[in-house]
Formats: sequence, C-alpha cells, structure tokens
Amino acid sequence: MYGAGFQTYVTLNELTNHLCGISRPTHFRGVATVVTKLFHIVQPHVAIFGQKDYQQLLIIRRMVRDLNFDINIVAGAIIREPDGLAMSSRNSYLTTEQRASALSIYRFLLKARTLIQCGTTNASEIITAGSEIITAYPDTKIDYIVVCDPDTLEDVAEIDRPVLVALAVKVGKTRLIDNMILARSP
Amino acid sequence: MYGAGFQTYVTLNELTNHLCGISRPTHFRGVATVVTKLFHIVQPHVAIFGQKDYQQLLIIRRMVRDLNFDINIVAGAIIREPDGLAMSSRNSYLTTEQRASALSIYRFLLKARTLIQCGTTNASEIITAGSEIITAYPDTKIDYIVVCDPDTLEDVAEIDRPVLVALAVKVGKTRLIDNMILARSP
Repeated sequence: MYGAGFQTYVTLNELTNHLCGISRPTHFRGVATVVTKLFHIVQPHVAIFGQKDYQQLLIIRRMVRDLNFDINIVAGAIIREPDGLAMSSRNSYLTTEQRASALSIYRFLLKARTLIQCGTTNASEIITAGSEIITAYPDTKIDYIVVCDPDTLEDVAEIDRPVLVALAVKVGKTRLIDNMILARSP
Repeated sequence: MYGAGFQTYVTLNELTNHLCGISRPTHFRGVATVVTKLFHIVQPHVAIFGQKDYQQLLIIRRMVRDLNFDINIVAGAIIREPDGLAMSSRNSYLTTEQRASALSIYRFLLKARTLIQCGTTNASEIITAGSEIITAYPDTKIDYIVVCDPDTLEDVAEIDRPVLVALAVKVGKTRLIDNMILARSP
C-alpha cells in the first residue's frame, strides 16, 4: 500500500483535534489516507462505517464531502453483547476480570442517558458521574470522557440540544471506545 | 468548491519542499486538493499536465501513484513563442520592455544546455551563468535557479546524469517559470 517514496497524505483539521485525535495525533491522517486509497482501488458506490468509531465515521463523511468522492457513506449501528458491551475485535484480549471491568463503559452510558433524559444540563455532572462509575472497577484507566457536539465534536458545557457522549477507557492494556447520542426526553 | 466547514487537504511531503514550494509554502497543498476534487467530479481516464509547471506535474504523478487514482497522467510539452519564451497566460501582463526582459529566461536555458552538452559538470557554474544572464536584463528579479534531480527535485552539485534546470523569475510584477531537462551529449 505504501511504495518507495510514498509522501501523499489526506489530512483533516478541526475534526481530528478532539477525542481519540488527542492521544493519537497522526491516527486519523492514516485512516483518511488509507481509506482514500481503498476507495480509489475499489471504487464503491456505498461504504459502511461503524458508529462505534464515531469520530472516524464523521471524518470519513467530511472527507467524502470535502473531496467530492462519489460514494454514499452509511453508518452502521453499534452492536452490543447481551450485557451491553459494544462488540469489538479487541474484546477478545480481555481477561475474565477485565471483561467485567469493561462493562463499566456501558453502565456509564446508561447512567448518562438517564441523567440527560431526566433533565441534567450540566455536562460536567455527566463527566463526573462517568469518572466515578469507571474508576470503581479494577484495572480501568480513563483516556477521555466527553460531552460534545455530534457534528463538530466541540465540547458542550450546557446540554441544550442532542449531544454525543463518548469515551475511551483502557482496561488492562486494551483501549476500548463507545458512545451514545443523547437528548432530553421530549 | 469549498463549502462551510471545509477542512480536508491532500498534502505531499518531500516534493513540495523545493523550487516554487519554498516561496509558496501552501500552494501545492491547494493544487493537490483541488485536483483531487476535480478528479472525483470528472472521473477522467486521462489527464494532461503541462511540463512547464514541472513540479506540479511531478506532484500530481506522485499523488496519483500514492493514492491509487485510476488515472493516466500525460505530460504536455512546453510550447514556446517563435523567439523561445514559454507560452503562459501571464505573458499578457508584460509590457513591451518586460517582454524583452522575459526572454532572458530562455536565453539562460539555451546557455545551460550548451554548457552541459559541452561537458560542464559543476552545477554552480550553471547557476552563476544564469544569474549573470538574467540580471543583465532590466526589471528582472530571480526567485530561484536550480540544477536538480528530475525525480526528487533535490539539488545536484555534480552533473553526472540528466538534470532538471528550472527557474522562476519576476519580470516586473509577473512571476514566470521555465525549465529544461538537460544531459551531456553522448
């Protein structure tokens, strides 16, 4: 995929400066570049990207619009295990104890949903609740918990519209991500 | 071409750090990005880029290879006026006096060809000859004169293989470029 003298990259500005882009500064440049290569090789009419990698989905959509790719990007819903853990090839790395700790991620998202549906408008309350829930489980380390705009990924302080609640947590050595779009009940 | 929230760019590393990329640091990012957009809109099988913009041609070729565009890039030869000035839409900006000074560019390239064909191997001799020829004409300002590798655009000190001799000169307010690939006579 990367021959001698390779030097061409597809880069995005604002969208890559949030969430996973902070701890992985060149990751999305790699994603955008290799997806561009794949699109040119395969020339698909439709491409499906999972909503679990929400930032990746947003970046691919933005790239497709900005660079006039003639491709329809479809979001694939998050599929969860019966207990709620988002499916991921990485889940197979977890020990039994880590698998139990990984569930803290979904527990927090359910808690955030309840809080927001019931009228909590202060994003920092959501984030504090997340810290408390996740650190109560052994072998967890929070990379980030954010309440942000679903289109720009910019932090939202007051929840007065639908928000993306997204987080990345290291469970042992395995980094897991998950998210939900949440809004106050009508 | 650039809607609200536009933030995706196609960038190249090494090839943009030479020749016109030095005085115009984001120029080729703009070229690579807009050409990518045009390629996606038009979806051509073949695209022709003029050899006068040699660096641009090289960058487009590299981009097409690196990003797996399914497009055949064809080089268009430099077309010259009867007296040798490379044709360019910018030539129309030149006054009669400036038009005479602009011919210094072609005069230098002919001189460089003679020197190299006759065995000059020291690139700095070529560059010195260029400075002398061009500054002898009124209203000229040299942006760069280089003797470089035709594939990498890296400076060549000793001319022991075919080289690109390229230059950019401001004649009045009009910036003109030209080049030749030159080699010792067999």
